[in-house]
Amino acid sequence: MSATPQPAERGNEGRESLEARLLRRLLGALGEPPVEFVIDWTGERVASGGASVAAVHLRDRATLLGLLADPQVRFGDAYSAGRIEVAGDLIELMNVVYRSAMDRGAEGSIAERVAGWLHRPRRNTLSGSRDNIHRHYDLGNDFYSLWLGETMAYTCAYYPSAGVDLDTAQIAKMDHVCRKLRLAPGSSVVEAGCGWGTFAMHMAERYGARVRAYNISREQIAYARRRARERGLEGRVEFVEDDYRNIDGRYDVFVSIGMLEHVGTENYPELGRIARRAIGRGGRGLIHSIGRNRPAPLHPWIERRIFPGAYPPSIGQMMQIFEPADLSVLDVENIRLHYALTLRDWLRRYEAAAGQVRAMFDETLLRMWRLYLAGSVAAFESGVLQLFQVLFTGRENNDLPLTRDYVYGR
Amino acid sequence: MSATPQPAERGNEGRESLEARLLRRLLGALGEPPVEFVIDWTGERVASGGASVAAVHLRDRATLLGLLADPQVRFGDAYSAGRIEVAGDLIELMNVVYRSAMDRGAEGSIAERVAGWLHRPRRNTLSGSRDNIHRHYDLGNDFYSLWLGETMAYTCAYYPSAGVDLDTAQIAKMDHVCRKLRLAPGSSVVEAGCGWGTFAMHMAERYGARVRAYNISREQIAYARRRARERGLEGRVEFVEDDYRNIDGRYDVFVSIGMLEHVGTENYPELGRIARRAIGRGGRGLIHSIGRNRPAPLHPWIERRIFPGAYPPSIGQMMQIFEPADLSVLDVENIRLHYALTLRDWLRRYEAAAGQVRAMFDETLLRMWRLYLAGSVAAFESGVLQLFQVLFTGRENNDLPLTRDYVYGR
Repeated sequence: MSATPQPAERGNEGRESLEARLLRRLLGALGEPPVEFVIDWTGERVASGGASVAAVHLRDRATLLGLLADPQVRFGDAYSAGRIEVAGDLIELMNVVYRSAMDRGAEGSIAERVAGWLHRPRRNTLSGSRDNIHRHYDLGNDFYSLWLGETMAYTCAYYPSAGVDLDTAQIAKMDHVCRKLRLAPGSSVVEAGCGWGTFAMHMAERYGARVRAYNISREQIAYARRRARERGLEGRVEFVEDDYRNIDGRYDVFVSIGMLEHVGTENYPELGRIARRAIGRGGRGLIHSIGRNRPAPLHPWIERRIFPGAYPPSIGQMMQIFEPADLSVLDVENIRLHYALTLRDWLRRYEAAAGQVRAMFDETLLRMWRLYLAGSVAAFESGVLQLFQVLFTGRENNDLPLTRDYVYGR
Repeated sequence: MSATPQPAERGNEGRESLEARLLRRLLGALGEPPVEFVIDWTGERVASGGASVAAVHLRDRATLLGLLADPQVRFGDAYSAGRIEVAGDLIELMNVVYRSAMDRGAEGSIAERVAGWLHRPRRNTLSGSRDNIHRHYDLGNDFYSLWLGETMAYTCAYYPSAGVDLDTAQIAKMDHVCRKLRLAPGSSVVEAGCGWGTFAMHMAERYGARVRAYNISREQIAYARRRARERGLEGRVEFVEDDYRNIDGRYDVFVSIGMLEHVGTENYPELGRIARRAIGRGGRGLIHSIGRNRPAPLHPWIERRIFPGAYPPSIGQMMQIFEPADLSVLDVENIRLHYALTLRDWLRRYEAAAGQVRAMFDETLLRMWRLYLAGSVAAFESGVLQLFQVLFTGRENNDLPLTRDYVYGR
């Protein structure tokens, strides 16, 4: 997609500017990904060699210096502000950068080390959670409805095959979870973190469940209640504007899709106690969350600008939910590649609605979210992030299907 | 199955012997399981009340005192020696004792606390592993062939439905694992801990795989080599009498069924490095192991008398294999109830061969292994133990089926 660097520019470092030499060093620190930097005010091109997947244009010296000082955060900020432009495929650019950073070595790539210095997640106290969640989700339902599709599900979908469309895949995800949980007419369900309420309504409407769904985002709860009224589900789904920590009562099923990322590892044992209290001995539970192969902080730019307080745990870290509460894990499924497909679908819709996003906010927000979506595709494609569904039950429960055939319609 | 205690004996503690009162206290410490102690030399019966599932006869005072001092280890030893007799269902006895001990409280039942004091697992150094494994498996192939069935698989089977027989379920387990690993003609496989070699031969014969299988038990390796010759598999399966830590070379698949219990948690990161080195970026791996809902030592009697050096890990502990090695966990399946079925099948065959076991060894070994098998049924039925199959791959591998449909023939 972009021109390969001129041999003269690569083999002749003595004539390079200081800026070019510093960028060359940055490329080395990043593990020599096949990308090209272009210094717009000198016309110099700096690349690792070989065919680049994209060219990164730097508009001014302050941007370049910022990038050298703190590549992870400054790249995102400068891209959002239009001081960095990418010629070529943004997803591929992120993909090769992630891959080469991870390949540099198992014991902490530069990306991870830089992230480690910078990243101090905000604590998820009851009021802290509220602030963090408001900041992200209260950008406005109208914004999200531009690109999330009809289901308004802002979590990883489930593609029975790669050609399926987004809405179908979101419904397939809901059904996949309901099958795992063996939802039946009359099942009582508590949902922790219900987003815009689509899944709660799906469980009530399609499976005859009685659902109580918690969320601390006022906008989302208002939207969900309105939709439930419109769909005549008022008696079967109750939306509670409250923190999951205030869940009480006993249910057949505890389910949480895409909330754990905002819980904070220090609160995992408490979440386990809450789930255990909710389902007792015989109930079933499922937690669906973005995760990691091993513990590492979230990308610092995402954490700062997009998802304050968010943290994707490793399976080992997730076990701090279940093990102290003596819950029994029945099934863990990693559907990482489904999130890459979901995000590609979101990004396609987002680009189609770019004019509306610009009109609603501004060019900076448009670009910020484009980078976030494209970077997230790359994170799931390169294996930086995973997506885990963990099915669990009380330790004493022997009322379990022998095999997982029931999930697969056999 | 046994008489309930006489009201006069329950309501009139003043007339009870000291022994009876001490046993009553032991019942309390165990959480009042519905079992009955019978002091054979006084005729006293001590029970928690309600219908007992079994009566535990104590033959002499030394046994009783030993039981009070160290119930976990002494019960097994005294039962093996015939100084304790059980009238009623041995499995149910173990079941209610496990359940009531666990119900006593999530923060360490007496059983777990007692186990914690007593249990210091032997370290699995290269030579220590050899000693521990020899002690258990070199009881003799003839002994195991009495009750393991035709497959000689000494690991949890997989019952497509509860009525399936043992041999069919063992083959179904092998096929379940092969499907998860997407074995294909020509796949190269390394197996860590291959038992009597049945699975290695199955992979070669039914799936066309080229298999290299490691085991440090001389008797098992000799048996496996003989069987491979008989089945004409010499060129396709290689049995190596060596420790898994000496695995080298590159393979499409790494698999280990029922070895992890003997590895020792301190060696998990090394096992992960070995697996990662064996499969590289694109290979697949599966580890099948007895486990726990949360960390706890193995029952001290089992560890001392049956499985020296064994330890069933929690999922969180197992992640110390995968996380440091940057392996990506794709799927965890808990098939606990299948091990209860397997063990019931083994115990049935074992009882049918009791005369042969007695002739081969003596009454003590016969009883020791009866208790071990019955206690293990109960451990899996009550949720003391779990059985995990963990499927994994290199972090960078995107050549993955989108769904698990392929495991379920869809």
